[in-house]
Amino acid sequence: MADPEQIEVPREDDAYALDAQAVRSVREAVEAGDAAALTVAMEPLHPADIADLLEQLDAEVRHRLIALYGREFDGEILSELDESIREDVIGALHPEVLTEAVRELDSDDVVDLLENVEDDASQEAILGALEASDRVAVEQALSYPEYSAGRLMQREVVTAPQHWTVGEAIDFMRGHDDLPEDFYHIVLVDPGHHPVAYVTLGKLMSSRREVRLADITEETFRTIPVDQDEEDVAYAFNQYHLISAPVVDDAGRLVGVITIDDAMAILDEEHEEDILRLGGVGEESLADRTMLIVRRRFPWLAVNLVTAILASVVIAQFEATIAAIVALAVLMPIVASMGGNAGTQSLTVAVRALATRDLTGANALRVIRREVMAGAINGAAFAVIMGIVGVVWFGTPMLGLVIGIAMVINLAVAGLAGILVPLTLDKVGVDPALASGAFVTTVTDVVGFFAFLGLAAVMLL
Amino acid sequence: MADPEQIEVPREDDAYALDAQAVRSVREAVEAGDAAALTVAMEPLHPADIADLLEQLDAEVRHRLIALYGREFDGEILSELDESIREDVIGALHPEVLTEAVRELDSDDVVDLLENVEDDASQEAILGALEASDRVAVEQALSYPEYSAGRLMQREVVTAPQHWTVGEAIDFMRGHDDLPEDFYHIVLVDPGHHPVAYVTLGKLMSSRREVRLADITEETFRTIPVDQDEEDVAYAFNQYHLISAPVVDDAGRLVGVITIDDAMAILDEEHEEDILRLGGVGEESLADRTMLIVRRRFPWLAVNLVTAILASVVIAQFEATIAAIVALAVLMPIVASMGGNAGTQSLTVAVRALATRDLTGANALRVIRREVMAGAINGAAFAVIMGIVGVVWFGTPMLGLVIGIAMVINLAVAGLAGILVPLTLDKVGVDPALASGAFVTTVTDVVGFFAFLGLAAVMLL
Repeated sequence: MADPEQIEVPREDDAYALDAQAVRSVREAVEAGDAAALTVAMEPLHPADIADLLEQLDAEVRHRLIALYGREFDGEILSELDESIREDVIGALHPEVLTEAVRELDSDDVVDLLENVEDDASQEAILGALEASDRVAVEQALSYPEYSAGRLMQREVVTAPQHWTVGEAIDFMRGHDDLPEDFYHIVLVDPGHHPVAYVTLGKLMSSRREVRLADITEETFRTIPVDQDEEDVAYAFNQYHLISAPVVDDAGRLVGVITIDDAMAILDEEHEEDILRLGGVGEESLADRTMLIVRRRFPWLAVNLVTAILASVVIAQFEATIAAIVALAVLMPIVASMGGNAGTQSLTVAVRALATRDLTGANALRVIRREVMAGAINGAAFAVIMGIVGVVWFGTPMLGLVIGIAMVINLAVAGLAGILVPLTLDKVGVDPALASGAFVTTVTDVVGFFAFLGLAAVMLL
Repeated sequence: MADPEQIEVPREDDAYALDAQAVRSVREAVEAGDAAALTVAMEPLHPADIADLLEQLDAEVRHRLIALYGREFDGEILSELDESIREDVIGALHPEVLTEAVRELDSDDVVDLLENVEDDASQEAILGALEASDRVAVEQALSYPEYSAGRLMQREVVTAPQHWTVGEAIDFMRGHDDLPEDFYHIVLVDPGHHPVAYVTLGKLMSSRREVRLADITEETFRTIPVDQDEEDVAYAFNQYHLISAPVVDDAGRLVGVITIDDAMAILDEEHEEDILRLGGVGEESLADRTMLIVRRRFPWLAVNLVTAILASVVIAQFEATIAAIVALAVLMPIVASMGGNAGTQSLTVAVRALATRDLTGANALRVIRREVMAGAINGAAFAVIMGIVGVVWFGTPMLGLVIGIAMVINLAVAGLAGILVPLTLDKVGVDPALASGAFVTTVTDVVGFFAFLGLAAVMLL
């Protein structure tokens, strides 16, 4: 019998973090070149935790660990590894170890592995490790578009004809040697192999043998098109509380099944992508080397440089005004910064609402109106505050008025741009998380500097 | 038999968005006061979609819809509703309709409903609607800390003694009238009601009646402490690919079970919280009214105002320098803006890595070094570019040198602050997503303006 992995009640923020003591033991064993001690130290770790551990080590220590760990390398560790070091680890594995590791995996995990390995030698090593029948399954999966349901699904599905009884289904399963590792439903199919309903194993368990499967099917039943984007698949699982869903081809025939654990992993990846893109980072991992992140972040910073220079060009139009009243140079970043922040607020809400399908054509107008109003009202509040600050600091009531008006204008514009930019990007098929930030801050910088300095030129000179 | 809800292959970005035609039909039925037409229009919609629809409608239309829809109001719609309009909808329901709706729900859904309803009258209405035994269950769940596993779990668990066989388990389940709606494992318990292992229903199905349950248990088995934070629960499900996990009290006794669909919903909520906090928004929904979002966003903007004024105070120290060389006012926002962007890149990576437990004490130093180096290298690249821009634009080589040096300094500092700030906040128990942005941009603004204007004062005057 399996022993429960006892989980101590941890300090809240450390729950499930890699145990520092375990990491130390592993490091020490690697440094001492002690294979036995390494095996002992790794033994309590879940493959997912071992993968995390490998990601945290320097490449050199990682390679020594892999060499020392040798034959015990579990295929699941490869699945769990971050893409950034998968090729590195695959390259470091002895071919025989790789073969064994890959053969342990389900075909959908092998597909995932191959998708994230760009190096041809690694790809061939993995495909070569598979038995012929598995290779066919994997190659078929790879024939579906990247990031589609077809790549995500398992091909093994437990099905039953519609006319079967509970007893027939149970007898069939008992007589079947190679049922999938995990399954939660039996899919009822018609003679054309179209899925028409499903029965949960729980319901099957609690029903008498003579009950017809057709009488205990679930009310909600959804099929997933095989070419559907995996992001949409994850959304459907979360929205409709699916546990597993049959995948169908263009003719509606059953070709596989997707289970919720895979959908949850996709949901997590999509969120990571959104957060990183909103933060101007793109694809990146903590295990990446310095020069790689330098190269990856450069384009984002370059875009920002262009928008910053654009803002500077606006300022340059008002050099004479600034030369006359230097206080303007002191205060102008405040207007731009507040606009940038308000714009980021609106665009964050919009990007998230687009991802959750809460922002649609039906309510876009209402949301735009709301954002502009909210921007203008908060702008007015901060106009009053900054008006007072301006007067107290520089003693010029008109300066306070100028900054106040500029603030109202910029925050209203921020609300407008913060919604319109992501909506437009989404409409033209660009991920709004990717590019909204640059556009919106360009607008708020340009409008902020122009409104403030322009009003100053008119009202103060 | 349930009919499959046919899903057309949709345009990629519209998959699962509310059908515009359906929304229109519903609106028209409400405007015409036509209850029969409304029922027809709502019929194909899943409760989750009906909830989305209610969120998109103006309050006035929403109330008319609820009045018209009347008795058909499904309890699940309440569960799916965004917190922002739950109280509004509950208040609009006829008491008898509310009673029926609440009674349909599982006890964990009622707990979730109560958690997000602050209004006492609504709380009492919900509790009053429950039957006595359900009320006890709900009140017991509410005795666990908010956002804990205890609030999330279902209390109904299918258990079996360790010595049972497959046949005994199946017979027990067939004889049991009130099995949970959905369950995927049988939990084996010892005589003290401590969970010791579990068996998947799939394995049970494919084994002969005489096989001992103890011989077909799953290798990985984890229990969740009842007071564990729900965020950690979601992490564990995602990290260890759990489908369901038994929940235990301090003495290790089984008190309930959490299933992956609930964990997935929590994962999604936590992500939403992170994204909104990073965007300076906090808790907010698209259905919120203008004045509510004005109030909610104001504090974030107020914090930004303080940091912006701080930056202005730095600039004010160099008024004389700017008066002498107005070009400085034109170029200074570029240095600050690039620093802010680079800092946001680093902090986004850090916040995400803290959430996924990838950034720990074991690799913090390496990551800090990497971020500072990456900042400095990208800073050097942009220093060259800006040096050239400075010379070309203003014809002063020294100005180009000043902006270049300031750029290197500020981007290296941005890398440092971008990691140290979230790490420190996490250490002291503050959510790094909440406050990192304000701190980091304060640092990059202050350092950016100070380095650029200070160097200019020394080198150009």
